[in-house]
Amino acid sequence: MRRFVVVGHRGSTSPKFSLNDLAGEGGRMDLLLNAASAGLLISHDVRRDTEVTLILLGPPTPPVSIRLDGNRLQSYGPDVRTGAGLVRRALGQVSRIERESSPGIFVARRGLAEVLDAIPEPLVELREDGKDIREVDLPRDVAFILSDTMDLTVEEQDVVARKRVAVASLGPRSLHTDHAVTLAHNELDRRHPP
Amino acid sequence: MRRFVVVGHRGSTSPKFSLNDLAGEGGRMDLLLNAASAGLLISHDVRRDTEVTLILLGPPTPPVSIRLDGNRLQSYGPDVRTGAGLVRRALGQVSRIERESSPGIFVARRGLAEVLDAIPEPLVELREDGKDIREVDLPRDVAFILSDTMDLTVEEQDVVARKRVAVASLGPRSLHTDHAVTLAHNELDRRHPP
Repeated sequence: MRRFVVVGHRGSTSPKFSLNDLAGEGGRMDLLLNAASAGLLISHDVRRDTEVTLILLGPPTPPVSIRLDGNRLQSYGPDVRTGAGLVRRALGQVSRIERESSPGIFVARRGLAEVLDAIPEPLVELREDGKDIREVDLPRDVAFILSDTMDLTVEEQDVVARKRVAVASLGPRSLHTDHAVTLAHNELDRRHPP
Repeated sequence: MRRFVVVGHRGSTSPKFSLNDLAGEGGRMDLLLNAASAGLLISHDVRRDTEVTLILLGPPTPPVSIRLDGNRLQSYGPDVRTGAGLVRRALGQVSRIERESSPGIFVARRGLAEVLDAIPEPLVELREDGKDIREVDLPRDVAFILSDTMDLTVEEQDVVARKRVAVASLGPRSLHTDHAVTLAHNELDRRHPP
């Protein structure tokens, strides 16, 4: 399995955030859903071998993790508004035990450390000052962690540093999260063709 | 200048397409605007050296070309709804002579052949069956042409074939247009660092 874990520092944990204000009231939910689309969608299909977990740390009741499992998703598309509706539904069903709020969408009261503990694949952090990803060893099954527009906090860095096997950078430009996901996928696609 | 020309076969040419139905009534305007964002945006900034031209070929009055000039854009963001509003405004001002409908956004009654004729840079077609882009000669100033979810028609292929210097592919997967733009940018960023 390929996994992407995206830390959404402001991502809303309210099931009532406005679908008309995903950037503001949603806490950059637009950005998080674009990252999910970059992780899960190829032309005319879903990447069945990929899972994206959004860690929402915004108000009112963080943390919440929302896991999108490409192997179980049905009719998932790139429209952020529709995706945000699925996230809102998930946010209405948060509990300690992970549950499937829609086909392929799982929600739980879990923060970064718990999410990373549940991931069996080697973890690669995507960060601007890492080693060029083209020179990093990447097995077929691998997990990537990346942040939204804000850097990981010192505490989050500590959690990630305990788990990760490498820090990889994607190029000389500072990129949007969804663009970073696209580039990591491409590098894996080339190493491990479908 | 880096240029991306995206052919939107169904892209609406009506200034009244619904902002709530960009995929349907907008003729995949969501996809076209995601491609524009991938072309123009990096983290916290606009790519000032990049221009994206959307060629809209949908009803009611094709063709229309909308050119987004990174060097002149003001406060452009990744929100597709806002971008769609700017496209609608442009569609209300179409004429043979290109005009600037908003800062950095230019509109004209121009189809593919006229748009390509006005581009000075060498043209590279992005297509799945091309040569691996990592092995294609890419000067700092280059133009890319790519299509939306539909392949170029035979007539469009003829127009492109007369201008292009290479056909490049981005990897083993069939990708969304915006993801293709991200990958082409990254390859250029690596060859010609900012």
